[in-house]
Amino acid sequence: MRVGGIAYRTIGVASDGRSVEFIDQTKLPHRFERLRITTLDEAAHAIASMQVRGAPLIGAMAAYGVCLALHRDASDAALEHAIATLRATRPTAVNLQWALERCRTTLQPRSTQERVDAAYALAKTLCDEDVEACAAIGRHGIALIEDAWQRAGRARAVNLLTHCNAGWLATVDWGTALAPVYLAHERGIPLHVWVDETRPRNQGAALTAWELVQHGVPHTVIADNLGGHLMQRGQVDLCIVGSDRTTQNGDVCNKIGTYLKALAAHDNRVPFYVALPHSTIDWTLEDGLREIPIEERSGEEVSHVSGQDERGQACTVRIVPEGSPVANYAFDVTPARLITGLITERGVCAASKHGLQGLYPEKFEGAPALFSF
Amino acid sequence: MRVGGIAYRTIGVASDGRSVEFIDQTKLPHRFERLRITTLDEAAHAIASMQVRGAPLIGAMAAYGVCLALHRDASDAALEHAIATLRATRPTAVNLQWALERCRTTLQPRSTQERVDAAYALAKTLCDEDVEACAAIGRHGIALIEDAWQRAGRARAVNLLTHCNAGWLATVDWGTALAPVYLAHERGIPLHVWVDETRPRNQGAALTAWELVQHGVPHTVIADNLGGHLMQRGQVDLCIVGSDRTTQNGDVCNKIGTYLKALAAHDNRVPFYVALPHSTIDWTLEDGLREIPIEERSGEEVSHVSGQDERGQACTVRIVPEGSPVANYAFDVTPARLITGLITERGVCAASKHGLQGLYPEKFEGAPALFSF
Repeated sequence: MRVGGIAYRTIGVASDGRSVEFIDQTKLPHRFERLRITTLDEAAHAIASMQVRGAPLIGAMAAYGVCLALHRDASDAALEHAIATLRATRPTAVNLQWALERCRTTLQPRSTQERVDAAYALAKTLCDEDVEACAAIGRHGIALIEDAWQRAGRARAVNLLTHCNAGWLATVDWGTALAPVYLAHERGIPLHVWVDETRPRNQGAALTAWELVQHGVPHTVIADNLGGHLMQRGQVDLCIVGSDRTTQNGDVCNKIGTYLKALAAHDNRVPFYVALPHSTIDWTLEDGLREIPIEERSGEEVSHVSGQDERGQACTVRIVPEGSPVANYAFDVTPARLITGLITERGVCAASKHGLQGLYPEKFEGAPALFSF
Repeated sequence: MRVGGIAYRTIGVASDGRSVEFIDQTKLPHRFERLRITTLDEAAHAIASMQVRGAPLIGAMAAYGVCLALHRDASDAALEHAIATLRATRPTAVNLQWALERCRTTLQPRSTQERVDAAYALAKTLCDEDVEACAAIGRHGIALIEDAWQRAGRARAVNLLTHCNAGWLATVDWGTALAPVYLAHERGIPLHVWVDETRPRNQGAALTAWELVQHGVPHTVIADNLGGHLMQRGQVDLCIVGSDRTTQNGDVCNKIGTYLKALAAHDNRVPFYVALPHSTIDWTLEDGLREIPIEERSGEEVSHVSGQDERGQACTVRIVPEGSPVANYAFDVTPARLITGLITERGVCAASKHGLQGLYPEKFEGAPALFSF
């Protein structure tokens, strides 16, 4: 996608052919900076500190982290160490495990001589696949926006609400929830996006709003508290969010607060969609609430807020009194019953085992235990 | 309530017997400052800028604003000007209109010679009534906390969630939603309060947390997005919030985001109570969603966050990119169907016309039109 008119991906190999370049998302929206890293530890730090975030992008960075590790030491032990190090960075998004498993499967059988080149080729493949999956999500999702436009009599812009950032910054390019938005905007369908601020890290205000500014998509930033009120007043035609992990039953684990918006959408009969590539589906899980591990992050993300002061300097302010404890769980689970549909790279389906089975029959074949109840 | 061990009310007459002193809530939680004002315009500014906020406290400040105006000019015209000026400060909380109507009814018949003293006496009466109403809310509400403690087998602290600030800072003393909390804490019932940050103005993080620190009540500050997740996990025993305007049908207009928490409570069978004095009930309205005017405030409350920087200086940071519009509606309406009960100074009742009629029969007598459908 474009920044200042220039097309970028969020991550890729630098001009030296070895080091990895990516957009530092902790500096946005105030500064657009690309970082260049050369070590496994830097890659792990980039994920843990959320310089890169978003389930698909975390997977891509993990693959590149393996590349950087193998470039220094291509041994079996180094491969396993890299996988273990990267896996430990964040627990909830399943794309991390998925990408690392693909690294292991592809690279373990190779000789140490071949491994480095194979790792870079694999990382590139994962990135290209992600771009293609997101573009396909866009093509499938645009029909939902067109439907909403029809329901509005083509008389006004479609009002879409999104939570957190599931735009191109969360992926390699295009985004998941925002891919249909960008495509609809390019095709001239008038739309307007309500952007949830998304406390505590403000990925909506900082990242989604910044993306939409760059692309000229009309939008309004709102406090996370506002979405229910807007839905009550008929000011939201549909919601689209992303996912960090989706169970085979269609439960969706996504940024904390997603569940509240799904409840409001359900209460006001507003369609609520989740956009995700297959890499975000955890085929081993059924019940999202019981089975998905929820990351707990530093309390400073709640007690402090970072932004730009009036002199244009980066500044962090404390908003909670000294002496007040804080809690910071990064994700919640939206039960499938509240989700109108899943938008995947293979099409739109019901948020259910049946729906996913229709699009991904191969994941259910030869696994009768999954149907035992 | 106590600050540093000293008992304060949020508002009162200064030692000169004329000027008005109040706690400047825009400075909390980092600085405790009391302001002294002498004019109507200062009183109006204090309400509009939210140096004082909270429905009952707004009513008290309005009454003192009338005092300050009449102290300069006790004419009929000055009285009407003061009422009109104060009424225009904020549209949603009905206590403002209620207090000003009491001022008009009480003061208009008086001679200009008597008016000033009568105004100060009335303001004092309104404050004392508010304190008594809040204390009574505490006495009625504590039973709900005791019930929750029983349900928990008295084996652990009661987990209570609140949104925004409906503590003593929102009233003259005691608070509405927090009055039962303070009373339960004094009686030794172990409890823990989940404090919603309450974007965009952070009244939870800044005011409720500060109150609870001062009183030693265990609590945890959380992002507004977290409450649903906590309820899904069984970590909330009951919710108590305040109200800025309640209809005779039991619909509750309160700080933006209250509706989302009520939905989550309903979805997880967590009791959801609203605490309010009768001054917050608008007996003229039935349907909160259609009839209550919702205040729209400055976008800067969304695009910027104020706090304390690492040097301990007050600092405001921008968190939204330049070029992104924002929207800022201050309240939403929670339909009565989502509310377990109303805690008033006369007792706890269902959030319905029938429930309110049981506690306030005099409001329904001689008003057959109210029962026309």
